[in-house]
Amino acid sequence: MTHPVSPLARPFPDLPAISGVTPRVARARYKDWDRCDLSFVELAPGTAVAGVTTTSKCPSPEVEWCRSALHQERARALVVSAGNANAFTGGRGRAAVEMVVNTVSTQLNCSVDEVFVSATGVIGVPLPQDKARTGLEAAFIAEPCSWRDLTDAIGTTDTFAKAATTSAMIGDCRVELVGVIKGSGMIAPDMATMLGYIFTDAAIAPALLQQMLSAANRQSFGCITVDSDTSTSDTVLAFATGQAQHALLETMGSPGADAFAAALADLCRQLAHLVVRDGEGASKFIEIRVTGAVSDESAHRIALSIANSPLVKTAIAGEDANWGRVVMAVGKAGEPAERDLLSIRFGGVEVAAQGVVIEGYDEAPVTAHLKGSEILVEADIGLGSGRATVWTCDLTHGYISINADYRS
Amino acid sequence: MTHPVSPLARPFPDLPAISGVTPRVARARYKDWDRCDLSFVELAPGTAVAGVTTTSKCPSPEVEWCRSALHQERARALVVSAGNANAFTGGRGRAAVEMVVNTVSTQLNCSVDEVFVSATGVIGVPLPQDKARTGLEAAFIAEPCSWRDLTDAIGTTDTFAKAATTSAMIGDCRVELVGVIKGSGMIAPDMATMLGYIFTDAAIAPALLQQMLSAANRQSFGCITVDSDTSTSDTVLAFATGQAQHALLETMGSPGADAFAAALADLCRQLAHLVVRDGEGASKFIEIRVTGAVSDESAHRIALSIANSPLVKTAIAGEDANWGRVVMAVGKAGEPAERDLLSIRFGGVEVAAQGVVIEGYDEAPVTAHLKGSEILVEADIGLGSGRATVWTCDLTHGYISINADYRS
Repeated sequence: MTHPVSPLARPFPDLPAISGVTPRVARARYKDWDRCDLSFVELAPGTAVAGVTTTSKCPSPEVEWCRSALHQERARALVVSAGNANAFTGGRGRAAVEMVVNTVSTQLNCSVDEVFVSATGVIGVPLPQDKARTGLEAAFIAEPCSWRDLTDAIGTTDTFAKAATTSAMIGDCRVELVGVIKGSGMIAPDMATMLGYIFTDAAIAPALLQQMLSAANRQSFGCITVDSDTSTSDTVLAFATGQAQHALLETMGSPGADAFAAALADLCRQLAHLVVRDGEGASKFIEIRVTGAVSDESAHRIALSIANSPLVKTAIAGEDANWGRVVMAVGKAGEPAERDLLSIRFGGVEVAAQGVVIEGYDEAPVTAHLKGSEILVEADIGLGSGRATVWTCDLTHGYISINADYRS
Repeated sequence: MTHPVSPLARPFPDLPAISGVTPRVARARYKDWDRCDLSFVELAPGTAVAGVTTTSKCPSPEVEWCRSALHQERARALVVSAGNANAFTGGRGRAAVEMVVNTVSTQLNCSVDEVFVSATGVIGVPLPQDKARTGLEAAFIAEPCSWRDLTDAIGTTDTFAKAATTSAMIGDCRVELVGVIKGSGMIAPDMATMLGYIFTDAAIAPALLQQMLSAANRQSFGCITVDSDTSTSDTVLAFATGQAQHALLETMGSPGADAFAAALADLCRQLAHLVVRDGEGASKFIEIRVTGAVSDESAHRIALSIANSPLVKTAIAGEDANWGRVVMAVGKAGEPAERDLLSIRFGGVEVAAQGVVIEGYDEAPVTAHLKGSEILVEADIGLGSGRATVWTCDLTHGYISINADYRS
């Protein structure tokens, strides 16, 4: 965490313990630093697991392992290495993953398929097995740690620790959900994005958990972008220990399933927003709402075209209500749009409609809105009822400083 | 031209006169500046014209006018306004275009469809008719100007004047080609891109000129990107006055047509490269070559994914051989790719192959290459014979400074 804390940072929340979840951290020293960089989370037997992973065609061996292990639907452990992504490392990378899962399965006397792994950091350097083994052995005998310690240990270029919590009532049983997440750059949609872990004591069938997580993902991690760059390692896993005392949720028709799905979606949205708030160099949190597109999918693509436009993002960094650049981004999206039907709002104030700027629109509230740190840009396409919302941050000198200096 | 001259700038070349082409410039004062910002190029009767325009769904009225006028295949005049793009200005923008073409057609006693128009600058403000009329009237009585004066007059945020020339032999008749171009930001492929004008004294049927221009465009302007943002106003027009003394080129089978098409393609490539060299904030000119893709189209999309990646562009700005980011960009392109078949070169030196970094590759020449200003990145996908080359520039603090400060 060598960069200044994001001005959009949120304080670390109070988080409840989740029955059946025991996190520990240790020093593997993947990089030349004095911090915990190996996380080991032990999960109670029978924990259900669901996950979504990157759509990258060049995924890391950790991602490939998780995809395969998810078929077994049960988890006993999660191991996260920070500082080395182990991506694009061929057979040596795969061997490192096998060593990690074998070591943990021996320790816990469980199947290797119940061990989930992630790694994040530099691409192209195989995870050093000696360091990973040293870290694991230290973690096995460490005291259980706090959520804050776990969140710090999974971070790399993150400037603040990101976590969220919510709860749901299943019948008269309250279940807790906790999520921790890391990510700041190489953040783009159409995938699971970043490393995020959700823990709950709810009792829920794995297939249902997967269904709920996939739906929540589409409305949260699938709707954020920092820099349009999709990582090789993105993974979000949800673990449900089933320690809460309620009847198992088996289908969306089970009593309480709706409440749990809503809580999970809310948690994912909170976590996704935190990642945008820690976007590299971010000084503004930007919500882009598109309405009136020919379909929700079309609206989503237009919203992302706006959110990924360097010219829109720099204009907002400069606190400039440059709606012309929004027009440009709508126009380049490749989706149906008609200039003369388009209208654009900043902070709720319509600045352009029907192909022309609004004569004499009140600039004062727009200017004031743009000087704030929470920016709302709305574009109505005027063709249909498709709608979508995405979140991004502005593009500032900070992004360049972070990424032109980051060395492999 | 308030920003420092690009370190990648090229000197303005010596350009020959083109028989039948008479440029003049004047002050319309579209902005509060003391420079020529209205260009009026008179073309000999019978001049053939071809053009390609932006694929934006929100094109400017000038683009719409040119698309329509191109059907007539003949041009007598070109008018370019700099400082105001007249885009997204509804009926008032269209009225301004009509005033301009009516004024010129009266002056030259030609059809309005023989008058081609462009405008570049701020989006969303209707072109002020009084300023345009004043500028036109001054241009009508001005002395003919140099190519350099014309190039300066069409520029906006350009940091250097961009033009190129070549020639072709048609039989034993030498024909000349001159191109002038403006553009620095809001540059992305899949369209005609920017404002560029090509003049030749060759005698060529308009349909053939269009065929050649479209082909040249695909290999030049269609292969560059500065910031992935597609303008509302991009236009490239080619004017052939037919003053050279050779038999009319009517089809690609006409003697000399091959030579002319090759010269036109060369000119377009020169002009496209000049735009990248003036990319906002650029410090490195980057060529991305992709080979081994499943098709040329797939290779093109992968190359653009690399060229548009903020993380690749900032790594090169930082002179970092961060091939992991190239892997990331290949992976996110959505095209067939197999991590374990991929190989990557910087400056001709293979740094990664078959899913792993090359052990002990010679870093010295790679480091030296990256310290230069002409960077070559090659990615072989290992799946087929599809290939493509695109050109871009790096992403630096200069881009942020230019675009976070640019005010409407």
